[in-house]
Amino acid sequence: MRRADPIGIFDSGVGGLTVAAAIRRVMPDEKLLYLADVARQPYGTKSPRTVTRYAVQAAEFLVGRGIKALVVACNTASAVALEAISERFPSLPVLGVVEAGAAGAVAASVSGRIVVAATEGTCKSMAYERAIAGWRGDSRVTCIPCPLFVALAEEGLTDGPIVESVARHYLAPLFDGSGGEDCLVLGCTHFPLLADALGRLAGPKVRLVDCAQATATLLVETLAGCEAPADTGGGLTLIATDAPERFSRIAQRLFPTMDEASRVELADLF
Amino acid sequence: MRRADPIGIFDSGVGGLTVAAAIRRVMPDEKLLYLADVARQPYGTKSPRTVTRYAVQAAEFLVGRGIKALVVACNTASAVALEAISERFPSLPVLGVVEAGAAGAVAASVSGRIVVAATEGTCKSMAYERAIAGWRGDSRVTCIPCPLFVALAEEGLTDGPIVESVARHYLAPLFDGSGGEDCLVLGCTHFPLLADALGRLAGPKVRLVDCAQATATLLVETLAGCEAPADTGGGLTLIATDAPERFSRIAQRLFPTMDEASRVELADLF
Repeated sequence: MRRADPIGIFDSGVGGLTVAAAIRRVMPDEKLLYLADVARQPYGTKSPRTVTRYAVQAAEFLVGRGIKALVVACNTASAVALEAISERFPSLPVLGVVEAGAAGAVAASVSGRIVVAATEGTCKSMAYERAIAGWRGDSRVTCIPCPLFVALAEEGLTDGPIVESVARHYLAPLFDGSGGEDCLVLGCTHFPLLADALGRLAGPKVRLVDCAQATATLLVETLAGCEAPADTGGGLTLIATDAPERFSRIAQRLFPTMDEASRVELADLF
Repeated sequence: MRRADPIGIFDSGVGGLTVAAAIRRVMPDEKLLYLADVARQPYGTKSPRTVTRYAVQAAEFLVGRGIKALVVACNTASAVALEAISERFPSLPVLGVVEAGAAGAVAASVSGRIVVAATEGTCKSMAYERAIAGWRGDSRVTCIPCPLFVALAEEGLTDGPIVESVARHYLAPLFDGSGGEDCLVLGCTHFPLLADALGRLAGPKVRLVDCAQATATLLVETLAGCEAPADTGGGLTLIATDAPERFSRIAQRLFPTMDEASRVELADLF
């Protein structure tokens, strides 16, 4: 692990940029190398076999460029492919947003009644249930697949009557006050974009957990002693497997002060 | 072209099954070989470069299995990749749903004011505008990208308040009666699944054009003289690049009397 090497981050699309932005806030001297597998997104509706194949290819690509740690900034890939990636690269520190989000939920919930809004792939994997139960045995986790949230966020429809009606469709029965749920995990990196509408629906007593911040916190612990030298000044390299212009537009909104957000490389993984 | 060979059909997912079903209704003796590139769907949000690459791979796969004609049962792939496929296989009859849908629209519209609901990729390609203008020079075509319709259909949300509000979001301004629009082309093979809600929104004076039926009609003309021998009894072979069980469930709804719909092969294109 070389201190000056970048931290590799990948997601199927733009969602993981929220994770990259959170990492940059807490570790501004690190270089970040971000790969978006836009040509094959979304991952959340695909089988574990296919998502694992794509995720291992993405990891191989980033490792080939030279990285000191890997952040799987996609909940679906974290849920189904983290083990395969770790086995492929046994000496590389590999972090997933699911373990970080689960830790955040355990810290945020008093009642232990936790709702996870996620993709179909993440819900089917039971990864959140397993991770949360590992920390708190008396928890009760309800994982709800919300695939339309991804399409809404990708289209920039992040609030308003359509978002509200879709949110009610998925989540209203869980937050009628009868079950004592006090925590909503945004278990897909797209969902923080809809946080305002989801927070209103869940109500003021429910705490929202955003995996991005939780992942950044966990990464600081993982890299303790291997932080980049402070004189590197950080940096951001963006790579997409399709449509780099569209990707760059969204990246510039998340990194308004960084020129690098306007330059997105196009790469083929397959 | 051997009469007994199957007709190859491909789409990114389940949408093209409506085309396969329409072909089966008019040509029950033909064998159909259907490929769904589920591992990389959707195509509609991706760049022409990537969609063309996927579509040519799908065509190569089907040609490798032996087919007498190819139906591109995905509007996005028809819009951007039909030429590349025809160049790659110059002696194979290749039909796309866009040209068929455009012909259907010209037949259905009196005013020449035509609305096409489609994916982003189809709209950007201007393929419907070009095809319709080729038949009717005084037409006015408005192509509206409706990406959320794909997510709704894939999730089985085909009617009800959410579908109605999304349909209003995209289409209401076009059907307020002021523009004389009298035809709505369902320019994505997913959209016929939402036809009831879209028909109510457009109103009784607007004719809906479903590309599936139009494509079957065009195929009959293309294959004139090369129909399968009547004693073959037809048949259906389904292949998916991911999650064959999920694909099979939807196929069995569209082909309830065919045992073949319960058997879906898994294949890798890449």
